[in-house]
Amino acid sequence: MSGIVKKEEGRTAKRVLLSVAYDGTNYCGWQVQKNGETIESVLNRTLSSLFGTEITVIGASRTDSGVHALGNVAVFDTDARMPAEKIAYALNSRLPEDIRIQRSFEVPSDFHPRKTPCIKTYEYRILNREFELPSERLNSYFFRRKLDVGQMQAACPYFLGEHDFKSFCSIHTQAESTVRTIYSLEAAEQEISGQGRLICIRVTGNGFLYNMVRILAGTLIQVGLGTYAPEDMKTMLEACDRQAAGPTAPAKGLTLIGMRYPELAGQIDDPDHILT
Amino acid sequence: MSGIVKKEEGRTAKRVLLSVAYDGTNYCGWQVQKNGETIESVLNRTLSSLFGTEITVIGASRTDSGVHALGNVAVFDTDARMPAEKIAYALNSRLPEDIRIQRSFEVPSDFHPRKTPCIKTYEYRILNREFELPSERLNSYFFRRKLDVGQMQAACPYFLGEHDFKSFCSIHTQAESTVRTIYSLEAAEQEISGQGRLICIRVTGNGFLYNMVRILAGTLIQVGLGTYAPEDMKTMLEACDRQAAGPTAPAKGLTLIGMRYPELAGQIDDPDHILT
Repeated sequence: MSGIVKKEEGRTAKRVLLSVAYDGTNYCGWQVQKNGETIESVLNRTLSSLFGTEITVIGASRTDSGVHALGNVAVFDTDARMPAEKIAYALNSRLPEDIRIQRSFEVPSDFHPRKTPCIKTYEYRILNREFELPSERLNSYFFRRKLDVGQMQAACPYFLGEHDFKSFCSIHTQAESTVRTIYSLEAAEQEISGQGRLICIRVTGNGFLYNMVRILAGTLIQVGLGTYAPEDMKTMLEACDRQAAGPTAPAKGLTLIGMRYPELAGQIDDPDHILT
Repeated sequence: MSGIVKKEEGRTAKRVLLSVAYDGTNYCGWQVQKNGETIESVLNRTLSSLFGTEITVIGASRTDSGVHALGNVAVFDTDARMPAEKIAYALNSRLPEDIRIQRSFEVPSDFHPRKTPCIKTYEYRILNREFELPSERLNSYFFRRKLDVGQMQAACPYFLGEHDFKSFCSIHTQAESTVRTIYSLEAAEQEISGQGRLICIRVTGNGFLYNMVRILAGTLIQVGLGTYAPEDMKTMLEACDRQAAGPTAPAKGLTLIGMRYPELAGQIDDPDHILT
């Protein structure tokens, strides 16, 4: 339904932030595409229908086709009366079941999710066992050959801190600088209902290059196989050459866990620390 | 492909056991139905195609429509040369992605999965938080109102041991006796990637009546809400009346974790203790 929302006297626009979770399986990524359904296009359509006026969101992370999220961030402006906190509920009753808003907040009107410093956390999940598990098929990468998690963990510290991650960046990047800072990187096992085992690679940083986490994961998998030694990570980084690092692991194993914006602390009501 | 398998001299039939995992979302349960696809019909069709002769499996647990499994059990007889351990691989390359064999074993030719004493373990998963998570939508029950897990856990011991579970049995049962023994019952929280929280109810017993685990789960949910006190479980059991217990929780939250057959110990090669 479209229409012109009358601006009543005293009615002001507000900027609303959505924390968005989605199963990326059936989407061509976040960003609007000509040739397929995307998270952004579903959000735009649903918001526009809900408020009766054309709305376009600004997204924090333009996740690739097949990549999932627990807490991506999108903002939009509206002068609707509906309180920001209620918008999550209104949207969820209209969204397809594979997209769910986790929270909605009012944020400062000049808050831009890609231009504000943030800390992003991703998780890459590897199902490392003899046979696939149907319950894990959508959001993990099935890898049969046994991986040495100890070696994978031993390789992690080489990536901590500020580095030029050019070796771990797709050649198709549009980034001006390939220098980034990783705050933490861990590879750990998780038992699944006694039916072992998932290996979860969790990484937190100030920004990630195109395919960076998937290349890190693909490289750590090779470390787990013994193809590389943990100390080879140093040489790989120094090479500043995509050919020096390992393969890009499949999109389905990757989930954007969440984003934190330290500058929003004190500016929004976030007792569960979803964003701050 | 059907055909007559020639019995070569020296060729004997063997009984093969399959440990079967499935996402029950797109199936009308385990048992062959006229009006929909079932796990059993997919297995029969795939086995018959693989071995070129009509094969019908005997299943251990006839799970309901929408119920999942990590380790249901099915047996069939074949005089194919293929070693029993290899059959899992051959099947998995032919099965739809929501059904996966976890292991295949040769078992004694008189082993019947429903007539041999076994210990079954089920898990009921409740997603107890404000908003749904797309990643958990297929195999958990979304329940928004806050549940007191401490109270739910306090109710569990009342069910341990041998009891007449008639109050926790669907009125549509065909069972002669409603007496069963529960070996363990626990309700515990699980964090999901810092996005809390799943409540998992895990129960192990010598057999379960029609809808018994779902009625236990639905009742424990009411305990978690404060509708019932933990000690009310005693009265409910003694009533031997379905009306005395709580509601039947939805099928999608239920997973058959596995089955153990103590009598098979020493008779099959099961180092990972999937079955023994």
